[in-house]
Parts: sequence; structure tokens; C-alpha cells
Amino acid sequence: MANPEPAPPVSAPRRTEAYAPGSIGNVGPGLDILGLAVTGAGDTVVAERIEGGHIVVIDPGHPELPNDPTRHASALAAAAVLRRIGQASVGIGLRLRKGLPLSGGQGGSAASAVAGAGAVNALFDSPLTPMELIEVALEAESAVAGRHADNVAPSVLGGLVLIRSMDPLEVIRLPIPEALYLVLAHPHMELRTAEGRAALPTQVPMAIVLHQAAQVAALVAGAVTGDVRLMGRALDDRLAEPARTPLLPGFAAAKAAALRAGALGCSISGSGPTAFALAEDRATAERIAGAMAAAYAAHGLASDTRIAQPDLHGLRVSTA
Amino acid sequence: MANPEPAPPVSAPRRTEAYAPGSIGNVGPGLDILGLAVTGAGDTVVAERIEGGHIVVIDPGHPELPNDPTRHASALAAAAVLRRIGQASVGIGLRLRKGLPLSGGQGGSAASAVAGAGAVNALFDSPLTPMELIEVALEAESAVAGRHADNVAPSVLGGLVLIRSMDPLEVIRLPIPEALYLVLAHPHMELRTAEGRAALPTQVPMAIVLHQAAQVAALVAGAVTGDVRLMGRALDDRLAEPARTPLLPGFAAAKAAALRAGALGCSISGSGPTAFALAEDRATAERIAGAMAAAYAAHGLASDTRIAQPDLHGLRVSTA
Repeated sequence: MANPEPAPPVSAPRRTEAYAPGSIGNVGPGLDILGLAVTGAGDTVVAERIEGGHIVVIDPGHPELPNDPTRHASALAAAAVLRRIGQASVGIGLRLRKGLPLSGGQGGSAASAVAGAGAVNALFDSPLTPMELIEVALEAESAVAGRHADNVAPSVLGGLVLIRSMDPLEVIRLPIPEALYLVLAHPHMELRTAEGRAALPTQVPMAIVLHQAAQVAALVAGAVTGDVRLMGRALDDRLAEPARTPLLPGFAAAKAAALRAGALGCSISGSGPTAFALAEDRATAERIAGAMAAAYAAHGLASDTRIAQPDLHGLRVSTA
Repeated sequence: MANPEPAPPVSAPRRTEAYAPGSIGNVGPGLDILGLAVTGAGDTVVAERIEGGHIVVIDPGHPELPNDPTRHASALAAAAVLRRIGQASVGIGLRLRKGLPLSGGQGGSAASAVAGAGAVNALFDSPLTPMELIEVALEAESAVAGRHADNVAPSVLGGLVLIRSMDPLEVIRLPIPEALYLVLAHPHMELRTAEGRAALPTQVPMAIVLHQAAQVAALVAGAVTGDVRLMGRALDDRLAEPARTPLLPGFAAAKAAALRAGALGCSISGSGPTAFALAEDRATAERIAGAMAAAYAAHGLASDTRIAQPDLHGLRVSTA
């Protein structure tokens, strides 16, 4: 009756592919606690079983990303899935297609982790729930970018996600108006998450504490009730944005240009350098994108701009 | 054509009565920014025109409240209405029926101000909007209890109100589940608002800043989406409650008793001494009320407890 090494289920796929969208972390005043998945760019991981009992990064997705599985977000997340499901000795090969910029502030490391976790989970017929996938991707994110869930959670769940608590982890997926346009402007410079984080104060004056809490609450209220203009007013971050603006040449000018062009609000995506602006319609979003690119150019910075909407799906997995 | 002194409109009432509900200010983590009007107790002001061109406090409503119109919340608000509508030389007599405890943490001074403003506004056929009434009542509240709008705004508008901004004033009335029970337990001690405020820190560690913002946002999300249990979890205040608990004998025991009796959450109402707990149904609320009263009694404090629901109406005015 002993069956020490069960065969994989007949239905288990040999090769899976998972797409995880990029996201705006630290949405405005929502430092570490509010994230929004957005359409248009994300990371894709193809996973397959291989011989040898190890995780191998066959394609790291970018020349600057390591092949070392202990330093690659997708591989770290894959290893965390295997540990969680008790399959740590299975060999897995990973190929990443990197759709998001490195150190761009668009949730790239989180998307790599989520796609890695999702693809490997699917190889075993998806035993892990979305909440468990957030937990394992968070383990990987912690190793490469710091322990915050405001990119990982929306990348898994889609939409706007509030992190109420880290210990224990509680995330709340919020309704959000679909007719919401986001302009992402990525100036060609890199800013490591650690650098953006080191700029933050350790103690905060009470008036700012109350202001920030009121803005995060107003942003959530605007999202849930469909009041996009309220969301724009609530993007009034007086904590991280003032601390990080000096690290981000051109940001202040790009924000001013966005607001003049009709943005409802504008702030830093993640810890930057990407800036994002909120718009009510696509035509205004296009004007804003042009204005932000021109402002960065005036500061000697080339930039990519794109127009996105909330990604309401999050992680998508397919098997072959 | 000159008409320097227009007669009052024929329809203008000679006597008005206004009721303003009490409220829970600083709802849990929502220090200064979140208030909830509750049923069951409030202040009532009767206003009438009198000779003499002054505001006279005919009945201050309580032996400990002053007749001096420059120190009585209702009269201060009445004067602010008259200034705002350009009728500063009209004589007004005021009578207050005080339904809320003094220095109880149930929004008593705000309710007195709102009722005074509402009654006098009605004497002139209500030229001021609800938002303007909040502004004038805030002037009075500033003089007697400090400049915060988290009692005044819900007392005017009813329901749960978020104060997004004080300058300029922007308040957001939020949907809230009607099937929500609040236990208010008022131990027989007084705590002046100023004393409760002095206990607050001036600088706050970053981890607490993020925690508080996440809880206020979660509380709003719970209210808007009807998730009462989420509201309860989000009443996890790590800023004002720990600072004020040492000023409030019996509070920690009453809170623990409330949670054991089935409360979804429990915190301080305003700056205390009233404590409030959240419950899903009336039977549980009654058990909680008994448990809280017993806990205060064990600390040698008599208390009043009452079970309330959200007051969705706010200020009510009648004329005669």
C-alpha cells in the first residue's frame, strides 16, 4: 500500500504560461497600502518541468536580470510555491518575458514574482488560492524589493487593492470605476526601490498623519462610489511625494504640466521614477501624456508614456 | 427706489426649533477626520426673535453651561449665522435642551452649535446651506472645543462623514449600513477635549502612520460596501487610543469585556470618556452594554450605556 512517490496527476500540464500585470504602488497618499493593477504592460513567465530537481532560469527576461534563481523574482516565487505545496525537489525551468521596465516604479519585480508563482502553481493543477499566491509572491518581493504587498496583491487580484494588515496579511479588493484613464510617464533614469525608501522620514508630524489618512480614505471612497474627481483630489500626498521629488529630476515640472493639461491628480508610481496622472477620458489622457513628455524633455530626459486603464483581471494563466 | 431696511419676509417664522444628534468623533483610527451621527440623544435649541439687538441665552440647558453668549456653543453659532447673513443687529433669544452629556465625548458641544445655527438659520427662512451651517457651527466649535469638524459635520448631515480637508473645508458623506448597532458606554467622569488632545504625540513613527491610514481606508471601505465586520477590524487605533487610555480608568477593561461579549470592535468616542462598541445585532449590543457597565463598575465607576444606530438625518428643524 506504500506509495512514497506519487505520480503527477494525469491532467497536470507539462508547460504553463502566466501573465501578471504591472501596477501603480503607493497610489498617491497610499504609501505601502494601496496598489492598482493597470493594463497594457506586464510580465509573462513560461514554466516547464525539467530533469534535475532544481529551478533553472532559462531566460531571465532582461540582460540586467540575474540567472541566479536565488536572486531572480520569478524563481524565488517559484521556489516558494514548491515549498508551500511540498514539491521542493521537482525540477522547473523558467523563461521570463519582461514587459515592464526595471526599477521603473511600475511593479515590475512584483509582476515577475506573481507570474512565476502563477505559472508554477498551474504546473501542479493550481493548489494555491489567489491569497496564497499573494503570500508566496510577497516572499519573493521581500527578497528583491522589500516587504510590501501593494504591487503583488493587485498584480494577482487585479483592480485597486488596499492592504489593511501585513501580519496577518489582509488585502481588500475594492470596486473601481472602469472609465478611468491613467497616464504613466517613465523618464529614462533608474531609481532603486531602496533609494526611494531611504528618502522617507522615520517620524511624521501629526498634521501630516491626519492629512494622509484622510486622503487614503477619500481615495477609497471615490473609487468605491465612482467619483473619479474625488480620487483626483485625494492624490494629495504630503509624505512620500515631497520626500522623493528631489530624487526625481523633472517630476515637479511633469506634474504641473499634467495638471495644466487636465489631469485630475498626479503623483509618483511606486517609488518612481514613473509618474502617473489620472484622467476622465482618453483624449485628455493623450494631451496629458504629451505634456508630461515635453516637461521631461525640457529637463533633458527622454521618456516613454502610455495610457492605461485599471486591469480588473490580474494574474492570467494558460496551460499547454 | 431706496429700500435700506427691508421688512422680514411675511413667511419668516417667529420661533423655530432645531434638533442636532450627538456623534462619535475620531471614529476609531479616524482622529479628527471621521465622525458618525448616532440616534437616541441630541441637543435641541428653540430660537425666537426678541427686542434689543442682542443674542440672549434664556436657558443655557445645563447648570454648568454659561449664560454668556460669547462662551455658549449655541449662541456662538447663532452669532456666526447672523454675521454670515448680514443680520448681526437682530435680537435672538435661545433656549437649549441639553440631551447630551457635558464633556462626554459624544459630540455635545458640536450638537449645541449645530442646533443653534440651524434654529437661527430657520428664523430667516434658511438662507444657509448645510455646508454653510457646518462652517458656522465649526466657528463656534473652534471657540469651545477646538477646530475639528468630525462632530459638527455628521451632526448637520447625518451618517458617516469623512473630513478630507479643513482648508478649504471638504466633507464627504459616506453610505453606511443601516443594520449597525453602536453601544455607547459613558462612565461617570469628565474629560475635557483639551486634556484628551494634550495626550497625543506630536510626531508619529512611520509604521503607525501607514497602519492608521490603512485602517481609516478600510473603515470607509467597510461602510461603503456594507461589510460591518471589516469596519470592526478596522477600529484598530494605534495612535489616539493608546495615548488616551491612561486618562480613562476602566476603558481597557470595558473594551476587553465588549470584545468578549461579541463586539466587532471597540474604541474611544471623541476624546472620551465615552467608549463605543460595534455590534451586528441588537441582542449582541445589549450583552455588550451589560458587559461594559460591569467592567466600569469593577473599576468603581458608575456608567450610562445606550444602544444607538447611525442617525441618517442629522439636523432637523421645525418652525412655529
